[in-house]
Amino acid sequence: MSAATRARRLDENADITVFEKGPYISFANCGIPYALSDTIPDPDSLLLQSPESVKKRFNIDVKINTEVVGIDREKKVVLVRPKGKEEVEEVSYDKLILSQGARPMVPDVEGVEMGHVFRLTTVVDLEGVRGYMREKGVKRAVVVGGGFIGLEAAENLKTMGLEVTVVERGEHVLPPIDRDIAEPVHAELRRNGVGLVLGKGVGKIEKDAVVVDGGERIPAELVIMVVGVRPRTGLAKAAGLDVGKNGVTVNGQMQTSDPDIYAVGDMVETEQRVTGLRQVLALAGPANRQGRMAADHIFGKDVAYRGNVGAAVVKVFGLTVGITGLSVEALQRLGREPLWVSAHPPDHASYYPGAHAITLKVAFEKETGKILGAQGVGVAGVDKRIDVLSTAIQGNMTIFDLEHLELAYAPPYGSAKDPVNMVGFIGSNLLRGDVDIAHGQDLTPEELKNMQVVDVRSPGEFSRGHLKFAKNIPVNDLRGDIASLDKSKKTLVYCQVGYRGYLADRILKQKGFDVMNLDGGYKSVADGGLKELQEVPPQKSS
Amino acid sequence: MSAATRARRLDENADITVFEKGPYISFANCGIPYALSDTIPDPDSLLLQSPESVKKRFNIDVKINTEVVGIDREKKVVLVRPKGKEEVEEVSYDKLILSQGARPMVPDVEGVEMGHVFRLTTVVDLEGVRGYMREKGVKRAVVVGGGFIGLEAAENLKTMGLEVTVVERGEHVLPPIDRDIAEPVHAELRRNGVGLVLGKGVGKIEKDAVVVDGGERIPAELVIMVVGVRPRTGLAKAAGLDVGKNGVTVNGQMQTSDPDIYAVGDMVETEQRVTGLRQVLALAGPANRQGRMAADHIFGKDVAYRGNVGAAVVKVFGLTVGITGLSVEALQRLGREPLWVSAHPPDHASYYPGAHAITLKVAFEKETGKILGAQGVGVAGVDKRIDVLSTAIQGNMTIFDLEHLELAYAPPYGSAKDPVNMVGFIGSNLLRGDVDIAHGQDLTPEELKNMQVVDVRSPGEFSRGHLKFAKNIPVNDLRGDIASLDKSKKTLVYCQVGYRGYLADRILKQKGFDVMNLDGGYKSVADGGLKELQEVPPQKSS
Repeated sequence: MSAATRARRLDENADITVFEKGPYISFANCGIPYALSDTIPDPDSLLLQSPESVKKRFNIDVKINTEVVGIDREKKVVLVRPKGKEEVEEVSYDKLILSQGARPMVPDVEGVEMGHVFRLTTVVDLEGVRGYMREKGVKRAVVVGGGFIGLEAAENLKTMGLEVTVVERGEHVLPPIDRDIAEPVHAELRRNGVGLVLGKGVGKIEKDAVVVDGGERIPAELVIMVVGVRPRTGLAKAAGLDVGKNGVTVNGQMQTSDPDIYAVGDMVETEQRVTGLRQVLALAGPANRQGRMAADHIFGKDVAYRGNVGAAVVKVFGLTVGITGLSVEALQRLGREPLWVSAHPPDHASYYPGAHAITLKVAFEKETGKILGAQGVGVAGVDKRIDVLSTAIQGNMTIFDLEHLELAYAPPYGSAKDPVNMVGFIGSNLLRGDVDIAHGQDLTPEELKNMQVVDVRSPGEFSRGHLKFAKNIPVNDLRGDIASLDKSKKTLVYCQVGYRGYLADRILKQKGFDVMNLDGGYKSVADGGLKELQEVPPQKSS
Repeated sequence: MSAATRARRLDENADITVFEKGPYISFANCGIPYALSDTIPDPDSLLLQSPESVKKRFNIDVKINTEVVGIDREKKVVLVRPKGKEEVEEVSYDKLILSQGARPMVPDVEGVEMGHVFRLTTVVDLEGVRGYMREKGVKRAVVVGGGFIGLEAAENLKTMGLEVTVVERGEHVLPPIDRDIAEPVHAELRRNGVGLVLGKGVGKIEKDAVVVDGGERIPAELVIMVVGVRPRTGLAKAAGLDVGKNGVTVNGQMQTSDPDIYAVGDMVETEQRVTGLRQVLALAGPANRQGRMAADHIFGKDVAYRGNVGAAVVKVFGLTVGITGLSVEALQRLGREPLWVSAHPPDHASYYPGAHAITLKVAFEKETGKILGAQGVGVAGVDKRIDVLSTAIQGNMTIFDLEHLELAYAPPYGSAKDPVNMVGFIGSNLLRGDVDIAHGQDLTPEELKNMQVVDVRSPGEFSRGHLKFAKNIPVNDLRGDIASLDKSKKTLVYCQVGYRGYLADRILKQKGFDVMNLDGGYKSVADGGLKELQEVPPQKSS
């Protein structure tokens, strides 16, 4: 619809026709998970336009319940078939835009086609689930897939009072992000009573349970299947258009291998700006822009798609989680060796009420400092920092630029040194060689044992949990107690979030120690779920 | 303190001494207005460090209550005088950093030195006001100055139950922003019971009232004077250092005309990145970074200050107001002729609960599309968009880049077409010549009378208030009713926020009309306080 309405704005005289296989057009599919609960009580509010409203406002003909079953590129016609009819009609085009989206994947397991197993992609799916819940009085649900939509669905089902379990095949939810960013999300889901089965796929679906790998039976009268999508490329393939590894191949003007046929949205492969690789992407913002751009090009505008960075954000109960660019795990899977730094600054001035620590993690190129990705998780202010960092990536900024970045500050909104500046400081210190850092996930208990590990927090903080083999010297005492440390040993210092560890690192480095600071401090280890590195002394009950 | 602590991190062996004339160091002065109310009940929470804590952690000597009264550059000594002493002591330096800030301006009017008139710059000022309020049981206060701090002070005094009036000499509060962005702030202040006297200075202060220009007496037992600041340049001038029109002159490394003397913060002139002009700036973020940078340069790092964009944000009761770069008024005062566009999109998907319209206004260069400034006002999400646009300015982006900008979207946080994209679309359409726009503040009732003014909203919207001389043709009827319009007349179309007006503009332009769309729609006229352009029919009581 972005393409069609843009086309109309550019040309009053064009004949514009939209074919839609289903009964609805222009629905806000990002709102669908929220319409499982009373967050969006009326699913009709997700229907942004109807064929009638589009006709009135845009003079566009919309044919719903009408499938395009073929393209004859020689004759420049599409073959369309209204629902329930046998005969196929030919409709001619000068320019054709394919915007077929992606189909939800369904694992090939027993029971997946049963009536209580739903997908959650369209308003029709939504109506199906809502009707089923109302009719059957569902009490227990399993959400298969811990991606963005899966977690939104789980939260909204839980909000409606259901017992909910999320089954995710990967080791953590939200596959595009790193484990240490996902761990606080696991904790938030569990705190809100959502069950979590990680590292296991679905083996079988029964009428009142989901059986996962290993045999565990999770009782459920409702199963929501959200394990990802695959581009709809059948029509394009049948028409002989070039199709890449996953999606339809397009150029920077969204043209397929046939210059009179454009393709946009979840069905095409576009360039990932950070990696330069072509990939499919199922995000609303890029899809909208591509549609607009296809229309622009058809009507003679000089436009070029710039690729995407994959910016995404999701609310999970009281947390916000976001990413732009690539995670460290994703970069490493591609054989890249990024540097990265983490920080846990408050979302706004800590003396102003309501401040909460956010975790912000930025990956960058060792050689240039170029920002490759940023992730965040926290109660508030995460979406803002992800958007700032997304803009920075698209502005080709480096980690050094983040040091200098001037953001708007007042106590309710940030700090004079914004979290984005903080990661810039830390990353720049690292790249300039002022500090060395170690990441928790790269450490083993054995390595800790062989190092000199110094916890520079207060004795009270130390007593509540610390790294294995650590000795406690508060940073304020470090200069005085330096003689108690062994300069010949590789030394790891750390504090709670990284700042005092950084001060200690600087003190020791200047005294000739071979020293590293623990990135993100003890909080990164604890929140990141690295239990094997921690020693938590028995706590006195209060 | 940013400079001193950074210096210590860079060099364990340096002798570092900080002289502070007052009794406190390193206080969070941005929090001071909030400590007028119970928002920050304990002013001590604003004291981030004490001389003792700094000594312990950083091995820095801090001399409070000690004034630097002179610099002997030949001998490389500063002359210091502890409070209450006559004798002056010489302290030698290799490198000296001046960080004296700015002094609050006080208008030269009768009564300004009375005991119930306070400034609000330091913790000492704060303690004075708090003590006075406690002791005298103050009921009525006048805040002189409607800048950022003035409005924060007014809100917090009002929160404490006082009767509060803000007196601002300019035509609107928040002088760095435009009137149309300030008008909703006026409304918010009044809605919350804060009195507002605009366009008038203070004539005289009496013991129980403030008399403004024209003679109006505003009863008040407490007067807070926040009318701006002036750099403290006396010491630098006396030492023969170069001083510009307003502040101390420094180079990109924060060195004064004496390379062994640095100056940072509110007392210096730095480059405004958008205009290239050197100016003083009283913002915490830039001041912090400059201090850090001076230390970096002293200890051999290759650094350069990049200038500032003047990003600022303020909470005014339930509203957030922000700016980065320059306002249109400020650009025009400098003789620039920027283009600008406005939009009122919801801060997040309108179907998700809690969405509110924000007003976003972006100014850009006609020739290049380079972004010159951005302003926003609204209930939520304003600080995020201002930070994104601030990053865009610092990344040398254009209005075209905003069309393409990929931001993280989920329904609770934004829209697939983010407000930042929206201003990008509108501005790019304008620059590409796809649409012409008119700004409400450039129009007079006479011009409206001579044009063909078409309101393309619904009859219901039209009946609640419209532009003078407007006729109502809903956009959906425009194609059918086009014969009722006169193609020979200059035509202005508008809707509520600009989008339907844009559709109408495109329809009419393609039919050969000389047509403009009203920027930001009727909402920009109504919220912007342009009463002379409006006609509000008598409303039926319900």
